[in-house]
Parts: sequence; C-alpha cells; structure tokens
Amino acid sequence: MVSIKSIFAAGKRIKGNIRETPIVSSPFLDKIAGRRILIKAECLQHTGSFKFRGAWSAISALSKEEQKKGIVTYSSGNHAQGIAAVAQVFACPSVIIMPSDAPQLKIENTKSYGAEVILYDRFSESREDLGIAIAKNRELTLIEPYDNSSVIAGQGTLGLELVSQLSRSSIQNADVLVCCGGGGLTAGVALALADGAPNLRVRPCEPKHYDDTSRSLQSGKREVNVGSHRSICDAILTPTPGELTFPILKKLAGQGLVVSDLEVLITMAHVFQRLKLIVEPGGAVALASALFRKDQIKGDTVVAVLTGGNTDVKTFERALATLKID
Amino acid sequence: MVSIKSIFAAGKRIKGNIRETPIVSSPFLDKIAGRRILIKAECLQHTGSFKFRGAWSAISALSKEEQKKGIVTYSSGNHAQGIAAVAQVFACPSVIIMPSDAPQLKIENTKSYGAEVILYDRFSESREDLGIAIAKNRELTLIEPYDNSSVIAGQGTLGLELVSQLSRSSIQNADVLVCCGGGGLTAGVALALADGAPNLRVRPCEPKHYDDTSRSLQSGKREVNVGSHRSICDAILTPTPGELTFPILKKLAGQGLVVSDLEVLITMAHVFQRLKLIVEPGGAVALASALFRKDQIKGDTVVAVLTGGNTDVKTFERALATLKID
Repeated sequence: MVSIKSIFAAGKRIKGNIRETPIVSSPFLDKIAGRRILIKAECLQHTGSFKFRGAWSAISALSKEEQKKGIVTYSSGNHAQGIAAVAQVFACPSVIIMPSDAPQLKIENTKSYGAEVILYDRFSESREDLGIAIAKNRELTLIEPYDNSSVIAGQGTLGLELVSQLSRSSIQNADVLVCCGGGGLTAGVALALADGAPNLRVRPCEPKHYDDTSRSLQSGKREVNVGSHRSICDAILTPTPGELTFPILKKLAGQGLVVSDLEVLITMAHVFQRLKLIVEPGGAVALASALFRKDQIKGDTVVAVLTGGNTDVKTFERALATLKID
Repeated sequence: MVSIKSIFAAGKRIKGNIRETPIVSSPFLDKIAGRRILIKAECLQHTGSFKFRGAWSAISALSKEEQKKGIVTYSSGNHAQGIAAVAQVFACPSVIIMPSDAPQLKIENTKSYGAEVILYDRFSESREDLGIAIAKNRELTLIEPYDNSSVIAGQGTLGLELVSQLSRSSIQNADVLVCCGGGGLTAGVALALADGAPNLRVRPCEPKHYDDTSRSLQSGKREVNVGSHRSICDAILTPTPGELTFPILKKLAGQGLVVSDLEVLITMAHVFQRLKLIVEPGGAVALASALFRKDQIKGDTVVAVLTGGNTDVKTFERALATLKID
C-alpha cells in the first residue's frame, strides 16, 4: 500500500519541477452552489493536467539504467502527455499506447515531446495486454497510469499542496471533490489529507455511466461499468477502480458524486466565464458536482479540483454554446 | 507624480485582498517566440483583470465619509467591474458610465456587483465630461480609470509582485511587455521595476491604429490616434496617453510594440491551447508582441502580462476559429 512517506518522498523529488497551482473562486459560482467553492486550478499544471506529478514521481524514482532503457505506458491522453514531457527531461525514451479516438491535441502534444505513440482500438483491444507485451519485448519499464505506487504518490503531492493552501485560508473541515477515473489522484489526495488535515474528506466525482467508484464504495467491492455508453469525459472513462487505489478509497473516501455530460459542459462554460480558465470535460466533473449536486454536500465550504485542461476545440465550442441558451 | 512610496502604501492596503497571480509558460510558445516567455496570468485576478488592484487602492484611500457618499467612474468595462466589485466590499455606492457597445458580459457583471450603470455613445459623447458633471451634481468622488494617482499606485502593485516573482526565478534582465491603453498599469509597473529591478524594462504594447503611446514615446509628446478605426481590443482603445501616466513612461519605458487584431486572435487561441487560460483581446496584446514582434525584442527571456480575461463568447469563438486554419 502507498504510504504518506512515499508521498513526502515524491514531494521532495518533484519540488521545483512542478507548479504550485493556485486556488481560485468566484462569487457567481458560490451563488450557484449555495456555499463557498474553493477551486484548485490544476489545469494550469505543466502539460495541462495533474498527471505531470505522477509522471515525475515515477520516472525520477527509476535507476539511471532503467531511465536509459526507456518506459512504456498506456493512456487516453493526459498521463501520456505527462509521461512524454517528463521522459524528455530525463532523456528517457518513451512509448505511449493511446486510443485511436483520443483528442487529436493530446496525441499531437504527446508526439511533440518526442514520444513514440502507438494507437489501439479502445473497443476491441486491451491496452493493458499491449503494454505488458511491449514492456517485455523491448525491455521497457511499464508505468501504469493509476495502479502504480510511484504514480499514486506523485498525485498525492497535490494533496500536500491542498493541506498547506487550505490551512493558510483557515479551512479545516470541508469535502474535497476530485474527478475520479482509475482513482490515482483521488487515492493520493486522500492519503495526504488523512495525514495533514483529517477533517478534509475526499469525495470521488464521476460521469454518468462511469460511476464504478461510487458504486464500489457503496457495495464495498470493485464494481465494473457495463454497456458501451459514450461520454465526453474521455480522461476518466475507466472500467473499474484500481487494485491499488480502491483499498485506499474504501478506507478514506466519502460517498461518490455523479454528474451528466450536459452538466459538465455547462460547468466548462462557467469556468470560462467566471474563472478565465480552460477545463476539459473529465477535469470539470468535480466542480460540476459542487454546482449541481449541492444537496449531497454538507458544510459552508467545498473544495473542487479542476484536474485538466486538454480539451478539443469542438468540445469546448459545445460548452460555449450552453451560454447562448436561456 | 506617483512615487514608489505610494505603490508600497497601496500594496499594504491591498495585501490579502487580491490574488498573487501566477507566472506560467509553455515550451510551445517559447518555440514560436524564439526565447523563453514568462507569462503573468493577471487574467486570474478578481473580476478578471488587473483593474481590481487600482480600484482597491483608490477606494481604500478614501475617507469613510467619501466612501459613504459614493464614487463615479467611466470605463469600457474592466475598470468598471473592478470599481463596482470593490465598492460593494466597502459598501460604497458606485455609478459607472460605460459605452453602449461595451461587451455585454462586462455590463452585466458591473450591474451584478450592485453598481448603477449609465450607458453613453462612444462616438458622440465625452465620458470625461459626463463623469465630471455627475460627480458635481451628485457629490460623488470621480475615480478616473488611469489618470489618477491612487489608481496608478494600485496597478503598480502588479510590478511589486513581478519583482519578487522574477527574482525567485533569477531573472534580472528582461523586457516586460505590458498591454497599454491609457497607461495606468504600464506606468505603475514601470515605477515598481525601476525601484526593485532596474534591469527589467517596461515596454508598452498596443493594437494597430491605437498606437498613441508608441508614437508618443518616439516623438516625446502626447500623440493622438486619428480616424475611426475599429479594433477588437476594446479594453485599451484610448485616444492619447494620460497626463499623469505619460511623463512616467517617457522617463522609464522602452520602445512600444504594435500588433494586429488577427495576431491578437491567434494569440488568444494559443493561450487557450497551451496555457489553459482565457485572455481577452486587449489583454493578449503583450503576449502577441512577444510572439509576433520577436525581432524588436532582445535577450533570451521576455516577460508578458496577460492583463484581462473578460471576453465575449463571439470574439472567443473567432479566436478558436484561427486554430482550424492550416
């Protein structure tokens, strides 16, 4: 199990190499939510998402020899960009397995950091099997996007930052809403808060039809999403909670929150208009929960993490279009 | 003349009430510019622009009695929102004279902070005369948007922040590009840099046809923009440099830089894609200068201030459309 010690260690390796992303807010959003919302703008992180943290943590933990041989990973795009960018810094060759329907921007950016990109079909191929095979054949280290201790520890550094930033604002008791796919960030933040601010409680937020973590927390075992539903929240469409992440969430996380794609689009538009930030669909799910699930939240303050900003133009235009409906 | 002492005093009054906005960057933008660009994301300031600083400085400097009587100002929108929001905090009645063709969002936001908005026709009426008349008739204090010592001192606090942030990054010698309308921010920042980091040199950036400050710096006297050109950079379309601001710029600023509306739209799109931020046209002029006037800039590092983010959806969609042209 990942420990708070490994998060502190990741924090030391990362220091000076990541941005401490700001906490922002808007009276207009507070009004909608019926309480104060403090928003961690992690979309401003290098490569546009929190994944840069886990990537730095994992690659910096490898031996010089492992770094020289190279790494392989699979990702819908944000982990891909984080890994590719960090690998470039460490002069470590990287192979990234990405779904062929990932946002074009994420594929292009990943390539531009010098990574080798291999596309696969999300509906007929297993990326995990592909990753294991390539790692074996080419003698690369596999860095899983969330079921990886070093990655979880790296994402946990966002939690360390939250503890320090919220304590400066004298916030001691609040729900901390985190966009949740495989649960790497949610688990890392949960561990950091449990250690540094035990009255800040993590709550995983998910898109409709991909609420495996919410359902798993209710049933107590890892549930699987069924059917072949579409969602715009590409960054967090995972089939089931991670093997490493779920035990942490089961112990530490509060009840999950679930929102629709339309609620996500409206939230992206609010973020544009009120915060002057770009958030991608999968990165807006936590704030959407704060705005649209207020009856399921307690307290006069809530914290929401904007986890990434790598949206395609088309999707963003759909979000802006919601501002024209009255 | 505004002194560095008045900027320090404004900094003390403002402390804890404004955001220290972050400095961000992107390797993609560095590549276009041919040098490192450090970008001060002041669009993340309260009310979406640096104007909140000057507003806080000016209103907090009034006596309790003056605050109770109220204030009046004129503004294309950002100063309006800053003044209205700060006035609300101080329970100070505010009257804002805005052009009838200002972006709808700016007008609505100003009203939502409880201000009384009076619209005027930019092409046939003088906002300065209107402001003086209303101040006299209703016994209000007039707070000019840039030709006002307290306002300039407030904008100068952005310069104090830059000095401290850039010194942490060991940047001692660089051009600091600032979007320039009447010159309140540019003058305030120039004073702060001259005191704290004399090798950081302010350079005013303006849209084509509204390059009065650039031309004035060349001729040594306050030049006026002629003709009735249109520009999307609504926030910085001023006829001539300020009476208070120009002497400061004449003494301290480097040569001006001028960009086109199309270059501004392309820059807004880059900011969307690479920095995950929203910048409005008038707020993107400095970064556009870094990207498109690189031959007029020296050194391996340049600093650009994104001064505001209050764009209309339509204009933002025009910016996004530039990403589709190849």
